[in-house]
Amino acid sequence: MKTAIENRGIGIVETRYYTFAQPPDEMVLENGEKLGPVTLAYETYGELNADKSNAILILHALTGDAHVAGFRKGDKNPGWWDNMVGPGKAFDTDKYFVICSNIIGGCKGSTGPSSINPATSKPYGLDFPLITIGDMVKAQLQLIKHLGIQKLLSVAGGSMGGMQVLEWMFAYPDNIKSAIPISTAMRHSPQQIAFNEVGRQAIMADPNWQNGNYYGSRVPARGLAVARMVGHITYMSDKSMEAKFGRRVKGERQDFKFTPDFEVEGYLHYRGKSFVDRFDANSYLYITKAMDNYDASRDRNPGEILKGKDLKVLVIAYKSDWLYPPYQTQEIARLCKQAGLDVTYCEIESNYGHDAFLVEVEEQTHLVKYFLERVQHGRVLSNRNIL
Amino acid sequence: MKTAIENRGIGIVETRYYTFAQPPDEMVLENGEKLGPVTLAYETYGELNADKSNAILILHALTGDAHVAGFRKGDKNPGWWDNMVGPGKAFDTDKYFVICSNIIGGCKGSTGPSSINPATSKPYGLDFPLITIGDMVKAQLQLIKHLGIQKLLSVAGGSMGGMQVLEWMFAYPDNIKSAIPISTAMRHSPQQIAFNEVGRQAIMADPNWQNGNYYGSRVPARGLAVARMVGHITYMSDKSMEAKFGRRVKGERQDFKFTPDFEVEGYLHYRGKSFVDRFDANSYLYITKAMDNYDASRDRNPGEILKGKDLKVLVIAYKSDWLYPPYQTQEIARLCKQAGLDVTYCEIESNYGHDAFLVEVEEQTHLVKYFLERVQHGRVLSNRNIL
Repeated sequence: MKTAIENRGIGIVETRYYTFAQPPDEMVLENGEKLGPVTLAYETYGELNADKSNAILILHALTGDAHVAGFRKGDKNPGWWDNMVGPGKAFDTDKYFVICSNIIGGCKGSTGPSSINPATSKPYGLDFPLITIGDMVKAQLQLIKHLGIQKLLSVAGGSMGGMQVLEWMFAYPDNIKSAIPISTAMRHSPQQIAFNEVGRQAIMADPNWQNGNYYGSRVPARGLAVARMVGHITYMSDKSMEAKFGRRVKGERQDFKFTPDFEVEGYLHYRGKSFVDRFDANSYLYITKAMDNYDASRDRNPGEILKGKDLKVLVIAYKSDWLYPPYQTQEIARLCKQAGLDVTYCEIESNYGHDAFLVEVEEQTHLVKYFLERVQHGRVLSNRNIL
Repeated sequence: MKTAIENRGIGIVETRYYTFAQPPDEMVLENGEKLGPVTLAYETYGELNADKSNAILILHALTGDAHVAGFRKGDKNPGWWDNMVGPGKAFDTDKYFVICSNIIGGCKGSTGPSSINPATSKPYGLDFPLITIGDMVKAQLQLIKHLGIQKLLSVAGGSMGGMQVLEWMFAYPDNIKSAIPISTAMRHSPQQIAFNEVGRQAIMADPNWQNGNYYGSRVPARGLAVARMVGHITYMSDKSMEAKFGRRVKGERQDFKFTPDFEVEGYLHYRGKSFVDRFDANSYLYITKAMDNYDASRDRNPGEILKGKDLKVLVIAYKSDWLYPPYQTQEIARLCKQAGLDVTYCEIESNYGHDAFLVEVEEQTHLVKYFLERVQHGRVLSNRNIL
């Protein structure tokens, strides 16, 4: 008997784990260092068809995980993009075999700085190598091959997930039929780097950080909370904060002078504190550094790589996103266009800032659904239906 | 004999101090608490004329001080608005008697949390009362009267200085002939509050903060530096950061993995560290809280207050300022217009973000210079000359 919760979408799902690169066959990282064994946490939804041509890989953002949709046993809330992934939804699990892969460097079941270093039998801490967006995707390619898939119908993701989409496009263009980069950039601007550096400094300023050796003792909770607070401001917009909080205050002023009097402050405190329970501070350092160091056009010419490829691309940006402003996403569309690819660029009105790609479901669903149909069946829709 | 430095502008200046509200005649604060004695640091430039009608008060921003122009003995750099204040400059010290007043709550020679509490003979720390923008201006009014001035020709300031300008307009409209609020707001939006709260949390998360009792021991340097780093990001713009830093890196990567590799990171580190040497962490808490709590229209109707007043207002905003976006500054102009005042609103093109009011001298000089002439001599200029 299905519960009410299960009926809303995919139902109960389970995170799975794939381990590879066992020593002495470690994975060689972009900087030449070796990492192994490597475990990737992942989830799959729907059925892989007979010719294995209906697989879509979804990539997550900075603090996401493999649990994109449905409910894990005991969960009250569904996965992070449940409104986009499921039967009849944008990524329709009645039609497609949807995979969501976690990243190396993370702390959600994949190998990262909190994992056990086989050389010491202790958590890596800062002995974990500096990984890159390229390394994340290289590991994902192993997972895809392990699942028996040679060519993905599509790769899709927003924010850092979008950077991984770009890496699939430029490093493994023959392994994908299409790509959907959303609210992302070819490379971080100094402003994006600066916000990440503030987060890193807040973590490293916390005396509990202990140069990364805090496992088994007190975690740098206050520093990580401050980092998350900064992040949340950049994920929202001036307008969405105004709509959500205004200048409403939280009840009576306390004796202590610097309590969070305004609702917006209380919200950020709550977000900061709850983040500490679910995320590892060192992973935050490693992943933000991977984002900052990423430059999709370093040491290669993406335009040349894409030329002549049979690759369809749907690029989505949101007008109020000031963390990944549309001009950055436009650069991707322009590049694809100049390389002669079949590319659609859509800039969607929204007040939600960078969060928009997670919450503006309706228009995004329409775009993704018809794009995927076109990729799978080669159907040509009129622009009116797409835009 | 004048040195080369002196010839560039005002020359050598000296900060002066005015102390009042000696117990038992303490100053009564907006929240009913008492504060005394109160000292205000201030500087003056130019000469007060015979009928005391040429005095202009300049108000500073969050971390500014009374030293707006010229050089103090031994200084290598001039005051914070030296490009706007001096002989022949926007605030022309050949014509006007310019006063710049520091604020209570600060740490630049005026009474604040690092001052000695007469009740304990120790620094106030968190025993210092929560002050408001209204309290800052109420203290400035005492200073102005002490200088023998009944009516100021103008009050001018940007950012928090602009909030003080608003307070002069709404609390003491009969004591000013004109006002120049720049890049400011009637009240902070939740986004502005949120950025300030991140700074406060970074300070209070530093174990050296010790609930504010760090005087005479180690200061919360790392927390205050993080607060300043966040601040600097919000003072610049995406474009000005791109122009100044791009993605340039600073030499060779170090052994430590999380060094500031990018120039923008190094710049923020430098700004953060040097700030610690010149600013008190508790003052940062008190002043940001005063800004967040300020609401120019709370418990009063500014439009009603201004009606019928002979008050000229010049409102200046900068297009790329996303910390105090032009829509906030426009609200001030609209309010003045609706109250029937002689008001000019100018939105200036600039890539410098919130910093623009400190660096975009040329257009601002033109606007301020002609506005002040018009206020002093009642001269009516054509719009072409003003806009």
